[in-house]
Amino acid sequence: MDALALQQLCERVRSFIDECVIPREDMSRAHDIGWLDATTKELRAEADRRGLAVPQLAPRLGGLGLNWVSCVDVFAQAGRSFLGAGALGCAAPDQPNIDTLLQIATPAQQRRWLDPLIAGRVRSAFAMTEPAPGVGSDPRMIQTRARRGRGPGGEPGWILDGHKWFSSGAVGAAFALVVVRADEGPSWFVVDADNPGWQLQRSVASIDPFAYGGHGEVVLRDCFVAEDALLGELGQGLVYAQLRLEGARLFHCMRGLGLAARAMDFAHDYVLKRESFGARLSEHQQVQAMVADSQIDLYSARLVTTDVALRLDRGDSIRHESSMAKVFVSEALCRIADRAAQLTGALGMSDDAPIAMINRKLRPFRIYDGASEVHRAAIGKRALMRTNLDNTR
Amino acid sequence: MDALALQQLCERVRSFIDECVIPREDMSRAHDIGWLDATTKELRAEADRRGLAVPQLAPRLGGLGLNWVSCVDVFAQAGRSFLGAGALGCAAPDQPNIDTLLQIATPAQQRRWLDPLIAGRVRSAFAMTEPAPGVGSDPRMIQTRARRGRGPGGEPGWILDGHKWFSSGAVGAAFALVVVRADEGPSWFVVDADNPGWQLQRSVASIDPFAYGGHGEVVLRDCFVAEDALLGELGQGLVYAQLRLEGARLFHCMRGLGLAARAMDFAHDYVLKRESFGARLSEHQQVQAMVADSQIDLYSARLVTTDVALRLDRGDSIRHESSMAKVFVSEALCRIADRAAQLTGALGMSDDAPIAMINRKLRPFRIYDGASEVHRAAIGKRALMRTNLDNTR
Amino acid sequence: MDALALQQLCERVRSFIDECVIPREDMSRAHDIGWLDATTKELRAEADRRGLAVPQLAPRLGGLGLNWVSCVDVFAQAGRSFLGAGALGCAAPDQPNIDTLLQIATPAQQRRWLDPLIAGRVRSAFAMTEPAPGVGSDPRMIQTRARRGRGPGGEPGWILDGHKWFSSGAVGAAFALVVVRADEGPSWFVVDADNPGWQLQRSVASIDPFAYGGHGEVVLRDCFVAEDALLGELGQGLVYAQLRLEGARLFHCMRGLGLAARAMDFAHDYVLKRESFGARLSEHQQVQAMVADSQIDLYSARLVTTDVALRLDRGDSIRHESSMAKVFVSEALCRIADRAAQLTGALGMSDDAPIAMINRKLRPFRIYDGASEVHRAAIGKRALMRTNLDNTR
Amino acid sequence: MDALALQQLCERVRSFIDECVIPREDMSRAHDIGWLDATTKELRAEADRRGLAVPQLAPRLGGLGLNWVSCVDVFAQAGRSFLGAGALGCAAPDQPNIDTLLQIATPAQQRRWLDPLIAGRVRSAFAMTEPAPGVGSDPRMIQTRARRGRGPGGEPGWILDGHKWFSSGAVGAAFALVVVRADEGPSWFVVDADNPGWQLQRSVASIDPFAYGGHGEVVLRDCFVAEDALLGELGQGLVYAQLRLEGARLFHCMRGLGLAARAMDFAHDYVLKRESFGARLSEHQQVQAMVADSQIDLYSARLVTTDVALRLDRGDSIRHESSMAKVFVSEALCRIADRAAQLTGALGMSDDAPIAMINRKLRPFRIYDGASEVHRAAIGKRALMRTNLDNTR
Repeated sequence: MDALALQQLCERVRSFIDECVIPREDMSRAHDIGWLDATTKELRAEADRRGLAVPQLAPRLGGLGLNWVSCVDVFAQAGRSFLGAGALGCAAPDQPNIDTLLQIATPAQQRRWLDPLIAGRVRSAFAMTEPAPGVGSDPRMIQTRARRGRGPGGEPGWILDGHKWFSSGAVGAAFALVVVRADEGPSWFVVDADNPGWQLQRSVASIDPFAYGGHGEVVLRDCFVAEDALLGELGQGLVYAQLRLEGARLFHCMRGLGLAARAMDFAHDYVLKRESFGARLSEHQQVQAMVADSQIDLYSARLVTTDVALRLDRGDSIRHESSMAKVFVSEALCRIADRAAQLTGALGMSDDAPIAMINRKLRPFRIYDGASEVHRAAIGKRALMRTNLDNTR
Repeated sequence: MDALALQQLCERVRSFIDECVIPREDMSRAHDIGWLDATTKELRAEADRRGLAVPQLAPRLGGLGLNWVSCVDVFAQAGRSFLGAGALGCAAPDQPNIDTLLQIATPAQQRRWLDPLIAGRVRSAFAMTEPAPGVGSDPRMIQTRARRGRGPGGEPGWILDGHKWFSSGAVGAAFALVVVRADEGPSWFVVDADNPGWQLQRSVASIDPFAYGGHGEVVLRDCFVAEDALLGELGQGLVYAQLRLEGARLFHCMRGLGLAARAMDFAHDYVLKRESFGARLSEHQQVQAMVADSQIDLYSARLVTTDVALRLDRGDSIRHESSMAKVFVSEALCRIADRAAQLTGALGMSDDAPIAMINRKLRPFRIYDGASEVHRAAIGKRALMRTNLDNTR
Repeated sequence: MDALALQQLCERVRSFIDECVIPREDMSRAHDIGWLDATTKELRAEADRRGLAVPQLAPRLGGLGLNWVSCVDVFAQAGRSFLGAGALGCAAPDQPNIDTLLQIATPAQQRRWLDPLIAGRVRSAFAMTEPAPGVGSDPRMIQTRARRGRGPGGEPGWILDGHKWFSSGAVGAAFALVVVRADEGPSWFVVDADNPGWQLQRSVASIDPFAYGGHGEVVLRDCFVAEDALLGELGQGLVYAQLRLEGARLFHCMRGLGLAARAMDFAHDYVLKRESFGARLSEHQQVQAMVADSQIDLYSARLVTTDVALRLDRGDSIRHESSMAKVFVSEALCRIADRAAQLTGALGMSDDAPIAMINRKLRPFRIYDGASEVHRAAIGKRALMRTNLDNTR
Repeated sequence: MDALALQQLCERVRSFIDECVIPREDMSRAHDIGWLDATTKELRAEADRRGLAVPQLAPRLGGLGLNWVSCVDVFAQAGRSFLGAGALGCAAPDQPNIDTLLQIATPAQQRRWLDPLIAGRVRSAFAMTEPAPGVGSDPRMIQTRARRGRGPGGEPGWILDGHKWFSSGAVGAAFALVVVRADEGPSWFVVDADNPGWQLQRSVASIDPFAYGGHGEVVLRDCFVAEDALLGELGQGLVYAQLRLEGARLFHCMRGLGLAARAMDFAHDYVLKRESFGARLSEHQQVQAMVADSQIDLYSARLVTTDVALRLDRGDSIRHESSMAKVFVSEALCRIADRAAQLTGALGMSDDAPIAMINRKLRPFRIYDGASEVHRAAIGKRALMRTNLDNTR
């Protein structure tokens, strides 16, 4: 897609978000999963009509075939609204689930689980995290087990047993991608939500608003799945998780750029109008300095995001850069949101403005997909292990 | 109160909080004002039974006669629970309203409004902040007017007209202290909640949980109040506001110390149990460093709070130190809460732990009672205006 | 220059720096201007032999015709040594003086002053800053005056009078570019160092080591210069200053990247060897986190620098981005240098390692060419003045 | 000493520093150890005349018998000048050496080494740190050995062998306290500087100015010392080191408070006079905010220092608090010095102002006596090991 076409696409996404999506935000329903589903369904239909849905997918899958770099601006526009990614059919966990299924599912698996997901007819869940002492930031600690077994009709397959929580999207999902430990090592399975062994206990209430399908706590008990529920190869679970995370994190960065930019837009507008101590807030130098710091944070965060996207488009390894981007961008965006709160005062603390919700939405990004501290240890070790210690090259 | 007696009092408050108050916290009702009132009533009764209520008041008022320094540890203990200050009858805005009424109300006014407030039979509101272009951080921008007028029966009094919001405690309050502009300058009045001119529109939804009486938006329309509704002297409103704020901020610091300490306690417990990457989290040096930074923040924040209390007990002016304490303590406590979230990961983002709520409760402290930026400008100007530029003395 | 050729050039610069330049560094002579000149002369000769000198200039001027983006990596390599930029003939103030003379000098002026400068036969100075109440961060405050007058032989020209300090490069310079106030506004002149009205008082001792020609304090007293000493047009001085600074700042960023990278290289090497508390320093997680933060700072600083270079190559205005880059990069590099000091302990504080000097060299970058605070106010104002408040675009 | 007497003493120290000491500072001689000795000798004589020398010592030792809390303000006054602590006879390493000798030396040892030190007739050194792989932040890594042996006349004693550097005060010292490893564990010895086995190689050039006796690199080769050179008990070296460091760090904090306060005084004065962008610098809100942050840093740093002093006076253990104070105060003071540099611009970078030197003097404080990172790990571990996890108490 050339620069002009991309810019026009961005403007179309922008119009869609401003005209259709932001007006549907309702802060009082920030945790109402049913309302979120219903609203998203309507918005997705409009996105389909406008030809804007799932733009990151190939045209044969109904998308626009955007490469990674093109996604940066498009997803930032979508990300401005809490409902934007869902409206475009590319909210987590569906978007990374689509990504995973495209990469490792068989054609038959894709027909069964991927196609309805892309079409927006169903939602999906992702179940990896477990309560202590299970898997959190350290992917090797998976406790949920898969062992070979037979189904009620004697058919061969797998029995899954364990306890998951913070299973993104679990409430209302049609199926879940589940990471478990088989004898061969961490492995991925698909479990349909109507499987009697998939027992959704509750959604864990959480600080972040507008989370599609919430954060499920799920018990897997004698959960039988047939042979074809295995995704990819046994024992390759950590490789798939790493692949998934690298892309998912980057989309997270893109959407977050839009949310942070919206916080800045709102704060700019506010300080230009509000007066205090004999001047508009915008004339106070501390305000200018905070605006400047947010400009710098947004500018550099966008450059970092774009650089990682470029490396992905070139087919380079992004292991090191993806970690650095995760830490840098998540922290920069949280700083921007925090300054916007400070600039807008009591209003920013209220639900009359989007600022408080933006702060709540962005905060977990420093934790989910690997806490900053875990990434820092990994980045540091990797840098120190390089045989050629040359930071200038 | 000698050191031993104080320590024993702290332990009694601590037991009360641990045994009676924390078990009553219900994160799912963080914004349920009615539930909060009902629960607080029961807890206050128990505090009365235990002789722990309103400890900052003189014995003749039913309190324990604590001086400011003694309050630091006692209120920190109470502040550990979201419901603790209310249980002891010293939550904002009642506590600073009591303080104001003690200082500037006539005996008749005290009998009418102060006594039931101290006894915990009613709650009160405080109405100063206005929507733009009215008063926010700059106290001189009050738009709500008071003019002399006559009541329905022809009795002399005042007519108040204006628009307030973020009126703390407005929902369910029996009366409000209202700061308005008279011809003589900013002035304080008491308005009963059943006054037909006091029109509560709604409670503004906000990020902070467990706010007694919420944050009311109120229209004052032809609101007649009799002569005896005037508090103190006409035109002295800013002086009273300053006095009130200096004390209120310090109590805010004390309560916040407890909330931050609880976040640390929770995080310590978590990192001592949770394992990751082959070791308990507590063995990772980044975790130790975060724990250390929170130790240092809490240690210094307590010293700063205590120093201001000491100056108040000595009768010194605390204008400069109170501002510095507000900025330092509010920011230190938010750092502690943020680290606790980072240390406890997804759990810390959920309502299964108190961490997310503690973050939400502490965040507005950097804005309410004067945003950090407003204080910084004032502190800087004051330091630079001193004729004797001597920072060593 | 294609990517491969650029990479090869970088390696050649790298070899030159490692083999010839770094071995000549002598920390004990950090402020010995004469030694610095003599050493630089020898190194420049070697750079000429290797075809590496003044690479940013067009081939017809003896350079390699590098565009801005290509300069980033080349100058970062050169910048690794305190003596590197000088060795390549592109240290400040000569490099920006060359830039200015190329842009606004007449052919005759270029023959007289530019050619010997490019060839490295002479050094030059830049005199703009004045002691209070003269020009510092605010370019409009120039006090030094130019008025029309006649020389000793009656020839027409200009008389300059005023007081400059922090005149970069003044000691040992053949001439200076001087910014003064004429009736038409700020204007630029060339003053030869042997002009009797150019009275060099001293070099102001300063924290930064290896400063070519030091920081001169100069009195201009009845300083007559002929007509042809005027550079460009009268009254355009601030425009020229802005142009000069945008380029100079970017070169400063590039060189600083190299210096910071060297600090990291040194620190990596140290923590991989040094043991403490039963492990190599590199195995301590706090060390890894510090290494990670420096990786992230260097990565993002390089992206920001490259983005501004790209905009310059495209001919875009870089006013906003250049300011943001100045603030971001100077602060990121100082953080890197500070961490390297912390990582290398007492050794890092000594002149046995380059770390202390790197800290001293980088520190003024947050002040020179516009202090961070001045840029922040400008960035904030500019962002707030944009009619289209859209931070996502 | 009562409050009034203490205040008067502070004023007398202040006058001495302003009238006699600061005028003798000569930035160009920041590393001239001989000049520093000669100047200090004269100043010490004047301090003796004024009855201000060694105020922390008991009256029977010629001091004023100040307790720890009283020392805070007195040493802050002295610390305002680079030469102040030396002028009062309480600069490191002499002051902590005096402290150590008072605690563990025999009366005979005290007569021989302590008395002339207190009288200011000689200077002393402290030799603990070693080049890698020897002792740095981890006190258990001492490589220098002591074994029993005989002197040239056959007398029994000890032979010391090893390599020390950053031996504070080594150049020009009469003797050194040396920490070495005996079979019984770390142990302390006194070595006279004229001992042929004590081979001073050089002073390691370092970033910090005005260091009494520099930072010596010393080889101990077949260094025989008699029996009476052993200080205290064999194997108790780490206990003595810890004791010494706790006090030394606190004095370091006190002196640093003065140096930082002086930087602020200078910066205040500058921003009140200097104009920029149409206003005095002091009227710019960013400047006010920086001034405020330094006020807050100094205020809290003084409270923390005083709290540790109070605990020492009470005889409490200060292990945890001393570490916290070291980290907090050293970092707060460096922030203050950095802001003063930023506020005073190019002048602050020059030796025409004390700011650059103050930055250089304070920077190593974050490293010497245990780097911040080492303390953070220790503080975190200690907090997490407490059986009673109660941060509110």
